Amino acid sequence: MQTFTMFAPEAASLGKSARTRAQLMDAAIAVFARHGIEAASVNEIARAAGLANGTFYVHFRDKDEVVSVVSLALAAEIARQLDEDMRDIECAIQRVVCATRRFLQITREQPPLGWAFLKACQVLPDLRQQVGVYMRQDIARGVKQGVFTEPVDDFLIDCVGGLVLSALLSCLSGTAAADAGARTAEMQLRLLGIDKEAARAAVGQALDAHPI
Amino acid sequence: MQTFTMFAPEAASLGKSARTRAQLMDAAIAVFARHGIEAASVNEIARAAGLANGTFYVHFRDKDEVVSVVSLALAAEIARQLDEDMRDIECAIQRVVCATRRFLQITREQPPLGWAFLKACQVLPDLRQQVGVYMRQDIARGVKQGVFTEPVDDFLIDCVGGLVLSALLSCLSGTAAADAGARTAEMQLRLLGIDKEAARAAVGQALDAHPI
Repeated sequence: MQTFTMFAPEAASLGKSARTRAQLMDAAIAVFARHGIEAASVNEIARAAGLANGTFYVHFRDKDEVVSVVSLALAAEIARQLDEDMRDIECAIQRVVCATRRFLQITREQPPLGWAFLKACQVLPDLRQQVGVYMRQDIARGVKQGVFTEPVDDFLIDCVGGLVLSALLSCLSGTAAADAGARTAEMQLRLLGIDKEAARAAVGQALDAHPI
Repeated sequence: MQTFTMFAPEAASLGKSARTRAQLMDAAIAVFARHGIEAASVNEIARAAGLANGTFYVHFRDKDEVVSVVSLALAAEIARQLDEDMRDIECAIQRVVCATRRFLQITREQPPLGWAFLKACQVLPDLRQQVGVYMRQDIARGVKQGVFTEPVDDFLIDCVGGLVLSALLSCLSGTAAADAGARTAEMQLRLLGIDKEAARAAVGQALDAHPI
């Protein structure tokens, strides 16, 4: 089993209970990434963490609880990293471009995180909804700035999110080109109502201003 | 268990073995739609078909084989229906618009088929590749006709396919608007390099010329 650590380092300075919980959450990500969420079992997660099933149940009620906790924590952690990277970017177009490129970079650098996030989005409506909340903020900002002209509703958010997830799948599967981040950002801008040439120019500008 | 019949009617006039095989395939679709492909078991498929496990193994080597056979048959059946509907349409733009709208209509009308197809696409690279082959034909036609300007590669096909699948998920989950087919078609045209106003006009024209 491929090891993965995201929650464990953060919990290193905390008490034993928090450390064990973090260890189970990291193990869950590795299992979800490998077998998918629907097929994952408590048994497997405990084994991947090197812990007994009983220990799992001290920290989580059942598989559904660990799936939900881990997925929302994953999404929050990705959103936190993106927010930090984009602290100083005011322009919504630039934010969308940077967020998309950074998202694909983060998930490409850590494939288990990428796979677990993708598979979690496929099966958890609550997670998709939460990710939609993050995405909607920058899109709404662009509408306010007068640059995005597409009416913002659930369906648009679903489609833009779906585009980014399919780019992620393509990256994880190895069928994406090296410039997948820039191309995905450009396609996303087109879905938000920006014409082709303007979208290309905006992405070029973001690449110069905010290299990653 | 929700019943679903797609293969059984076609096999009705065939021998007993073909009928049993079709019955197992329909049951597999219902199980995949309900529990996801990764979590589905041979046991469950046989039970849903009202047959013994042993009967399953007369027709399929294992779960992987039934997953692969059913998914490719599903894709071929959807492609056949779309092809039939579009026999007389020469223009690639009109074909893309009609195919997208009809695809969402077919899968909305038969949710188990929609769910099974979506879940199969999520986990089977071979199926995604096959669906990509169908999509690429109309897109290549548009490039030849000089209307699509985007370079056609695997990544573009992944992204366009991902957009349509996310629209499907939105429709199946009940978050899509009533005009989801037309909007998805318009977004797809934008990804293929057509500007916003031209894409909207083309969809309007297709709606008039080929009402569904």
